[in-house]
Amino acid sequence: MIEEGDRVILVGQKREYYLRAGPGKFGSDAGEIQLADLIGKMPGDRVETHLGKTFTIRVPRPPDFFTHGKRSGAPMLPKDIGMVIAYTGMNRNDSVLDAGTGSGVAAIYFGGIAHHVDTYEIRPEFARLAEKNIVDASLDNVTVHAEDVLSAEGSYDIVHLDMMIQKEHVAHAHSLLVPGGFFVTYTPFFEQTFSVIDACNEFFSGGVNCFECMERELTRTARGTRPSTRVAHSGFLTIARK
Amino acid sequence: MIEEGDRVILVGQKREYYLRAGPGKFGSDAGEIQLADLIGKMPGDRVETHLGKTFTIRVPRPPDFFTHGKRSGAPMLPKDIGMVIAYTGMNRNDSVLDAGTGSGVAAIYFGGIAHHVDTYEIRPEFARLAEKNIVDASLDNVTVHAEDVLSAEGSYDIVHLDMMIQKEHVAHAHSLLVPGGFFVTYTPFFEQTFSVIDACNEFFSGGVNCFECMERELTRTARGTRPSTRVAHSGFLTIARK
Amino acid sequence: MIEEGDRVILVGQKREYYLRAGPGKFGSDAGEIQLADLIGKMPGDRVETHLGKTFTIRVPRPPDFFTHGKRSGAPMLPKDIGMVIAYTGMNRNDSVLDAGTGSGVAAIYFGGIAHHVDTYEIRPEFARLAEKNIVDASLDNVTVHAEDVLSAEGSYDIVHLDMMIQKEHVAHAHSLLVPGGFFVTYTPFFEQTFSVIDACNEFFSGGVNCFECMERELTRTARGTRPSTRVAHSGFLTIARK
Amino acid sequence: MIEEGDRVILVGQKREYYLRAGPGKFGSDAGEIQLADLIGKMPGDRVETHLGKTFTIRVPRPPDFFTHGKRSGAPMLPKDIGMVIAYTGMNRNDSVLDAGTGSGVAAIYFGGIAHHVDTYEIRPEFARLAEKNIVDASLDNVTVHAEDVLSAEGSYDIVHLDMMIQKEHVAHAHSLLVPGGFFVTYTPFFEQTFSVIDACNEFFSGGVNCFECMERELTRTARGTRPSTRVAHSGFLTIARK
Repeated sequence: MIEEGDRVILVGQKREYYLRAGPGKFGSDAGEIQLADLIGKMPGDRVETHLGKTFTIRVPRPPDFFTHGKRSGAPMLPKDIGMVIAYTGMNRNDSVLDAGTGSGVAAIYFGGIAHHVDTYEIRPEFARLAEKNIVDASLDNVTVHAEDVLSAEGSYDIVHLDMMIQKEHVAHAHSLLVPGGFFVTYTPFFEQTFSVIDACNEFFSGGVNCFECMERELTRTARGTRPSTRVAHSGFLTIARK
Repeated sequence: MIEEGDRVILVGQKREYYLRAGPGKFGSDAGEIQLADLIGKMPGDRVETHLGKTFTIRVPRPPDFFTHGKRSGAPMLPKDIGMVIAYTGMNRNDSVLDAGTGSGVAAIYFGGIAHHVDTYEIRPEFARLAEKNIVDASLDNVTVHAEDVLSAEGSYDIVHLDMMIQKEHVAHAHSLLVPGGFFVTYTPFFEQTFSVIDACNEFFSGGVNCFECMERELTRTARGTRPSTRVAHSGFLTIARK
Repeated sequence: MIEEGDRVILVGQKREYYLRAGPGKFGSDAGEIQLADLIGKMPGDRVETHLGKTFTIRVPRPPDFFTHGKRSGAPMLPKDIGMVIAYTGMNRNDSVLDAGTGSGVAAIYFGGIAHHVDTYEIRPEFARLAEKNIVDASLDNVTVHAEDVLSAEGSYDIVHLDMMIQKEHVAHAHSLLVPGGFFVTYTPFFEQTFSVIDACNEFFSGGVNCFECMERELTRTARGTRPSTRVAHSGFLTIARK
Repeated sequence: MIEEGDRVILVGQKREYYLRAGPGKFGSDAGEIQLADLIGKMPGDRVETHLGKTFTIRVPRPPDFFTHGKRSGAPMLPKDIGMVIAYTGMNRNDSVLDAGTGSGVAAIYFGGIAHHVDTYEIRPEFARLAEKNIVDASLDNVTVHAEDVLSAEGSYDIVHLDMMIQKEHVAHAHSLLVPGGFFVTYTPFFEQTFSVIDACNEFFSGGVNCFECMERELTRTARGTRPSTRVAHSGFLTIARK
C-alpha cells in the first residue's frame, strides 16, 4: 500500500511520470490529479484526472530508478550492473562494499539483493543525491558514506568500484574481502583497465578476468526486423577473485 | 561452518575441485584428503593432504554452480542471467516464476536474490537434476515443479522462460504477473524470437524490448593486450512489462 | 593535372570543400578563390584566397565520393563495400553486374577496380544522379542502365545486388555468372536475408555464407582511449558461389 | 585457358583441391586424374576420374589463395583486407607500398586492384614463400623486396604495414605518400595500436581514425537461424591521410 512520501509512477497512454504521494498536484495534458489521493492505493490501481483520463499506479523497481532517478554524471548501465551481479553471484547473504556511488543506481540494485551495502562517495553533493535516491527506493540496508573508500573497514563478500582506481585501492579491496570473495571494477578507458588488471594480477590469486558487454537491440517494425544501428558499449569490467 | 553433506570447493595451486563434506576421500596428484575432515571448517581454512600439500576451502557461490554443477544440455550463460536480473530489477521482494529449469543454474541465481522462486521443468530427469543442484546450493526458497508451466497459478513479479515458447505461454505469463511486472524470455533462434516479440506486443502494454548481449574478454599477456578472438553470443532476451 | 570540369577537394585548416574546377568562385570565411584558377594545378598544390589563406588541392578518391557525392537514400557503407570486394576477390579481370545503384557509391568503388561494371537502377532519377557521380569520378568503364536488372544479359564474374530481392533475381544472377563466380547481396532486414539465403541454397552449389560486419571506432583523447559508444551495423551480406 | 604450371582448383561433391596443371596425378577417394589433362581446359569444364567421378575446374581468385595458399603465421583476414581497400579507395591508378608481406595474401588482393604493388618482407624465407604465391596468382605487377621497408623509396598513393611499427616507419611512410594518400596499419594489440595512433597524429594532418571490424556469421539450419557463437576479431586498422 502506498504511503505518504512514497515514490509512485503514473503510467498513462503514452508517457509515464515519476511522482511522490503527498501534498501538491500533478498536471499534464490529460488533466490534474491530487497527489494525496495516491496514498492508500495499491500498485495496479487506476486514478482518474479531473478530465476523466486514467493513469495506472506503478511502484518503482530498480530499472525505474535508473530511468527516473536524479543523476550525477553518467551512471553505470543496467547491463553492466547485471554483469557484476552475475559474475559475483551476488545474493542475500552478501556484504557488499561499493564505491563511486554517483547517484546510487548500482547501490540501489545491489541493496535490493544483498544483506547489506556500504557505498562510499567522496563528493558530498553526490553522496547527498544518492542518499535521497536510496530513500526513495525504500532501502534500509544501504549506508552511504561521504568519505574516501580507503577509510572503509570490515569484511566483505564483494567489493565493487566505479571510480578512478589506484593500486592502493586494489590492495585495500583485497584486504577487506573474505576468501572466495570478488573484486569488480568498472573502467571506461583502456589505460586504467590495463593498470587495474595488472594490480589485480599482483594481489588476487583466484583468477582475474576482464570483459566488456556489447548490448544490441533488435528492432521489429512493419518494414522488418533488424539490429539497431547502435550497439551500446560503456566500459570494461575487471573481476578478480580472492 | 561447513556441515556434513555441504558442497565445498578445494582450491589448489592450479586446479579447484568440487566436493562434498562427508564420507569418502579425495585424491589428486597432490595427495589425499579425508572428506570428513572438512566438516566444521570455515571458508578460507586450509587443509593438508597426506603429502603435505595444502588446499584452501571455498564455499560455492552461484558462479561456482554454473562452473561445477551437473548439467543438462546448454545452460543459460551468467551474462544472460545477469541481464535478466538487471532488466527486471530482481530483488528480495520478488516472487519469480521460472520455466525450462534445465539443470537449475538460473533458478539458483534467482533463488539467491528473490523472495521465492517456482521453477517448472517438464522433463522429469532434468527436474530431478535441478532439485539436486538447488539442494547443493542450500536454497530453501526454490520449488522445482516437474510439470508443464501452463499449470502454474498464483501471482508473480517476474516470469522468466528458457524453453520453446508458444503464444499461449505469453498469454499465461501475462495473466500471472502483477501490474508493472516483467516477462522475460531467452530464445537462441531468430524465428522464435520474432514470434515471441509479436506475442508480447499483443499482450503487454508496458513496453517490449529485445536485446542480445555480446560479451568479449580482454586478454593481457606479456605480448600485449587484445580482445579475445571470440565474442560470446548466446541468444536473445525479450523483455515485456505488464 | 586538373582539367576544366574536374571535381576537386580544397582542404583547409578545419574543413574541406568539394568543388569543380571551372567557372564561378568559391567563398568561405577564409576568403574567395576563382575556381578557374584550379585548372592546370596538381594534387598537393596550394591555392590562396584573396585574404591570403591557403587551401591544399586534393583529387577525390572513392571514399571522398562517399563523403561528398550527392546521395539518394542510404548508400552502402564503405565497410560493407570492402567486404564485398574482399569476399569476391574483385580484381581488374572482372566483369561486374551491380544493381540497386542508388547514388552510385558501390559502382564507383567497383569501377575503380574491375574491368567493367554494368549497374542497373530502375528509378530514373537515381540513375541520372548515379551517372553524374560516376562522371565526376572520371570512370569510363561503368555503364548505368536505367532498367530492371532482370533485363541484364551477358556473362559476369560477380553479381552484386543492393535492392529488394525476389527469388527470380537469384535465379537470374546464377544464370549470368561464370563458374566460380560470386553472387553477393546486401539486405538490411532479417526477413529478406533469410529468404535470400534460402534461394541461394537452392541455386548455388559452391557455398552460401551470410555475414554482418560490426565496425567500431577507437577514440583516443587526453582523457584516455576507449571504444566508441556506437558500433556501426548496417546490414547483412550473403555471398554465394557458383 | 589453363596452361602448364597454372594453379587450378578441382571442385568435387564435398571437397575442393588446390592443384597445379602439369606433370603428376591427383588421387582421392573419387579416383585419379592426370594433372596434364587439365592443360587447355577452361574454367567450368569438368574432368572425370578413372572411376568416373567428375570434378569441376575452377581458376583461383584471391579468396582461394587465402584459403589454399601456403601460409606463414597468421595472415590478415579478408575482412580486414577489404576494410583497407574500402577506407583507402584502392583502385587501378594506385601505387601501393605494402610491408610485412608474410605469405602475400594482402599483396595478392592489392595486386589484383592497384597499378603496382611493392611489398617488403625482411624475413627471406617468407619473401620467397610470398613470391611463389604471387606467381601462382599470375600477377606481374607485384614486386617482392626481401628488405627492410625503411629502404623503400619513391612515391605511393597507399602505404600499408602489417608488421611491428616504430615511429620511424610512420615518418617514412608519410614521406613516401602523395598528398591525399593513405597510410594504413594493421596491429593486433592495443599497446602498439595506441603508439601508432599517436605517431600518426604527429605526422598526418588529413585525419587519423582507428577501427576494428567484428565479423559475425549467420547460420541457418533446419533448427533455425542464429548468429554464430563466434565473432571474428583480429586487429585494429589505423588509417591516416596525408
